[in-house]
Amino acid sequence: MLENPPLSGATNVAPYRYAAAVEYSGAAYHGWQKQRHDLVPCIQGRVEGALSRVADHPVDVICAGRTDAGVSACYQVIHFDAQVQRPERAWLMGGNTYLPEDIALLWVKPVSTDFHARFSAQARRYRYIIYSAAVKPGVLAKGITWTWKVLDEVKMQQAAEALIGEHDFTSYRAVACQARNPVRQVQHLKVYRQGQLLVIDIKANAFLHHMVRNIAGVLMKIGAGEAPVGWARDVLNARDRRQGGVTASPFGLYFVDVDYATEFSLPKAVPGPFFLSPAD
Amino acid sequence: MLENPPLSGATNVAPYRYAAAVEYSGAAYHGWQKQRHDLVPCIQGRVEGALSRVADHPVDVICAGRTDAGVSACYQVIHFDAQVQRPERAWLMGGNTYLPEDIALLWVKPVSTDFHARFSAQARRYRYIIYSAAVKPGVLAKGITWTWKVLDEVKMQQAAEALIGEHDFTSYRAVACQARNPVRQVQHLKVYRQGQLLVIDIKANAFLHHMVRNIAGVLMKIGAGEAPVGWARDVLNARDRRQGGVTASPFGLYFVDVDYATEFSLPKAVPGPFFLSPAD
Repeated sequence: MLENPPLSGATNVAPYRYAAAVEYSGAAYHGWQKQRHDLVPCIQGRVEGALSRVADHPVDVICAGRTDAGVSACYQVIHFDAQVQRPERAWLMGGNTYLPEDIALLWVKPVSTDFHARFSAQARRYRYIIYSAAVKPGVLAKGITWTWKVLDEVKMQQAAEALIGEHDFTSYRAVACQARNPVRQVQHLKVYRQGQLLVIDIKANAFLHHMVRNIAGVLMKIGAGEAPVGWARDVLNARDRRQGGVTASPFGLYFVDVDYATEFSLPKAVPGPFFLSPAD
Repeated sequence: MLENPPLSGATNVAPYRYAAAVEYSGAAYHGWQKQRHDLVPCIQGRVEGALSRVADHPVDVICAGRTDAGVSACYQVIHFDAQVQRPERAWLMGGNTYLPEDIALLWVKPVSTDFHARFSAQARRYRYIIYSAAVKPGVLAKGITWTWKVLDEVKMQQAAEALIGEHDFTSYRAVACQARNPVRQVQHLKVYRQGQLLVIDIKANAFLHHMVRNIAGVLMKIGAGEAPVGWARDVLNARDRRQGGVTASPFGLYFVDVDYATEFSLPKAVPGPFFLSPAD
């Protein structure tokens, strides 16, 4: 009778917790998070809608890291509780059937109720993809950030070194950021070329609101020769958002990986997005 | 006075002919060609609209190869005649300002009136991009063709060999194809893996309607083990469309290059689409 316990008295039924990875193109969405009203499309709403149809009851979803409007993900991890037990394949295939074409579940796995997509996450990783060329792209226009400026990735990497490690990132977070503590641990920050693209690859224990895009804005200005290499460090030390650079476009930002303790036995991120083979 | 000859008596003014390369994502369009009515968006209409605004008079555009609904291009070549002479940069930057984000001019150059984007073309090249994975993609969903089937690219390459050279491609063209002569010269046809993607790269003097997608349909069926390697040749020899396979999806098909005589001095295609570094 575990397959379909009665929904009446559901609060007495021990929930079954599942983890899942979600890939999405954020171009058409007002970000991950559900708004108070349902007037704008959000990714969370679509994922909850699809899983609710498989579960046959309303499902709430918690994610590892909320992404802004326009931001994409190759490996957003979520968890949800269901009053029903279903095979992994039913959640995965059923969920994907009910999702729009720009959102996909990559896997779904049962996990212990100790697992929490946000609080269990030990580190998050993003890639910011820049297309530096004389004319704008026609393909993947909302999947990369275009600049006509020529960028020097060596200078950008030199500047980035100052941000690696544990720092107060007040200058790199949105004024509206609600985190109580502005200190974050940047575990790696690499700038490299991949064909015609320039990639900023950053991993940290967690990120402040707009942190990756504000770092990208500063590094791009340095790469364009409009600020010296030392400016990234000066901005950091100022601990003042007004000393920072512009917030770079959300198009081109991809949430690519989350680390959890090995005890949860979650699948590792596959190399993605697939137009970018990974650097490591 | 060459900069802006009067538009009255324009038929007496020798036109200035320009060539241009266009990159576009075909996902949102009903193909290249303008329809009799203006109810559906087409790429030709958008390009003509943008160039007409720069020219300040209506501009008609001729392309190297008309693409179907959903098909993209990294290097579609066009020509157009203008009653006004403008710097290359004015056409390029002005045109791109008036184009939507999923269409871009890559370059614009003056050419002799001997040049004709379609009739001067000596060869066209397409890439067909397949994503073979257990679950559908969330990123680039309308820029690749997804199949859950495992494809054997070695078998696909073996099958493809039969199509290289000059053949009657009746079995590989749409029933509605209007070309009088079904004979085409396939100059190369390669199937290879690139990271998580499988690429069919084909070059021919010209293509029949749906020819690339019908070839892709046959090769994918062979790659999935649903037909023997010799089937591609059997279909070719049958000269009967009813013996062929399904027409593969337009999403994933990219027009990537056109050859012209060197006397026209047109820029070569840059490696693209940029999520695919080229095989050669």
